[in-house]
Amino acid sequence: MRKYNGYLIDLDGTMYRGSEKIEEAGNFIRELNRLDIPFLFVTNNSTRTPEQVADKLQSFDIPAQPEHVFTSSLATANYIYEKNNDARIFYIGEEGLQVALDEKGFQFAKEDADIVVVGLDSDVNYEKLATACIAIRNGAEFLSTNGDLAIPTERGLVPGNGAFTQLIQFSTRVKPTIIGKPETIIMDQALKVLGTKREETIMVGDNYETDILAGMNAGLDTLLVHTGVTTKEMLEDYKNQPTYTVNTLAEWRFK
Amino acid sequence: MRKYNGYLIDLDGTMYRGSEKIEEAGNFIRELNRLDIPFLFVTNNSTRTPEQVADKLQSFDIPAQPEHVFTSSLATANYIYEKNNDARIFYIGEEGLQVALDEKGFQFAKEDADIVVVGLDSDVNYEKLATACIAIRNGAEFLSTNGDLAIPTERGLVPGNGAFTQLIQFSTRVKPTIIGKPETIIMDQALKVLGTKREETIMVGDNYETDILAGMNAGLDTLLVHTGVTTKEMLEDYKNQPTYTVNTLAEWRFK
Repeated sequence: MRKYNGYLIDLDGTMYRGSEKIEEAGNFIRELNRLDIPFLFVTNNSTRTPEQVADKLQSFDIPAQPEHVFTSSLATANYIYEKNNDARIFYIGEEGLQVALDEKGFQFAKEDADIVVVGLDSDVNYEKLATACIAIRNGAEFLSTNGDLAIPTERGLVPGNGAFTQLIQFSTRVKPTIIGKPETIIMDQALKVLGTKREETIMVGDNYETDILAGMNAGLDTLLVHTGVTTKEMLEDYKNQPTYTVNTLAEWRFK
Repeated sequence: MRKYNGYLIDLDGTMYRGSEKIEEAGNFIRELNRLDIPFLFVTNNSTRTPEQVADKLQSFDIPAQPEHVFTSSLATANYIYEKNNDARIFYIGEEGLQVALDEKGFQFAKEDADIVVVGLDSDVNYEKLATACIAIRNGAEFLSTNGDLAIPTERGLVPGNGAFTQLIQFSTRVKPTIIGKPETIIMDQALKVLGTKREETIMVGDNYETDILAGMNAGLDTLLVHTGVTTKEMLEDYKNQPTYTVNTLAEWRFK
């Protein structure tokens, strides 16, 4: 294990499991704080604000502040702002996306928007999807906060934002730019916020297909922790292995 | 031109164009009536009842009765009834689908349904899509009334039922059975209702990708009329040509 000067850290499966505490997570973050190592929680979840996410982490005894939280909504807002801070946006999404776009001062539009952002929205309806499709066919750029196809709930797996993204992609025949893991945009934007160099930053997560691939795609070292999605058995099927694997975060040494 | 004893006839682009009359359509149907040749309008539109469709046709001076109308919703209901008349169904859809399923006396269920039917629904919401996904993951058979990806409206192209079908397919990784054109189920069910033999029945439509392919896939002769989607230029790109092509239905001779 090398010493890393920056940590990007996944949430669900890494810091907690749904509504369940992961015991080792709190100490992992306390150790980062004690060693004064910068870190950022990087989540594909676009629906919540950093304050809401920090509240949830604190309820699991994890010392997190809103400024430690980097959602796919924040990454989307930063990405658009860099490209065109005058962009007029139509979005499908919840409070996390709305607040992130509002804070950048973007204007909003409908069928004549410059950019369409699609994020998970439990109030999605036909009219929102139709407006998104028409705006994209009218030439708007098509962004999606994340490509997750299904979300675990107590009822079972329900559609994720990736499924709604596919609906719009199939109807318009336009491919979206996807911001979230395993794509690199969220990682590049997180590194800018964190302020550490790529080669001295590590990505920590439980899901090979999102977290570890995102780290690899962005050229980071990676740490897979077996407290969530990807088991040891599943990991054997992948050709490119994470830089490190641990059973729980208690095994990790910060050097 | 041969004499055909049965006609399956598309609606939009063939009998009318959106809210616009196609002049030659009324006489084509009057001639079928005069010659006492059985015919059925075969439409992928699942949202309306046969009565509503017949009313629209009559408003264009086309002598249609409800019993002449065969929607993808009717084909779906007949198809399910043949396989399992006790099936408990969860459906997404409008009045056309609801009435078709009601008339067969099916029972309805949610996450524990035996069959999920997905049809176009302007009142679609997250809860309906989530219930469909959970039921399919629980083992329900996945049927889709039709695979149309986009629908022309005065505002532009809006998502069709095929786009919602893709959403569910991508989220669940289960492939649907699609009832509508160009698939064969709607054609096979239409032939049963019409009561004519495959080899003496012709499929008439304006859209190569749906109507003509549906006819070919079902082993019928086909008549493409250039009053809708597929132009002469577009037709040149296809290897398998329709049995006949006409500029308008006025050119057709019933023999």
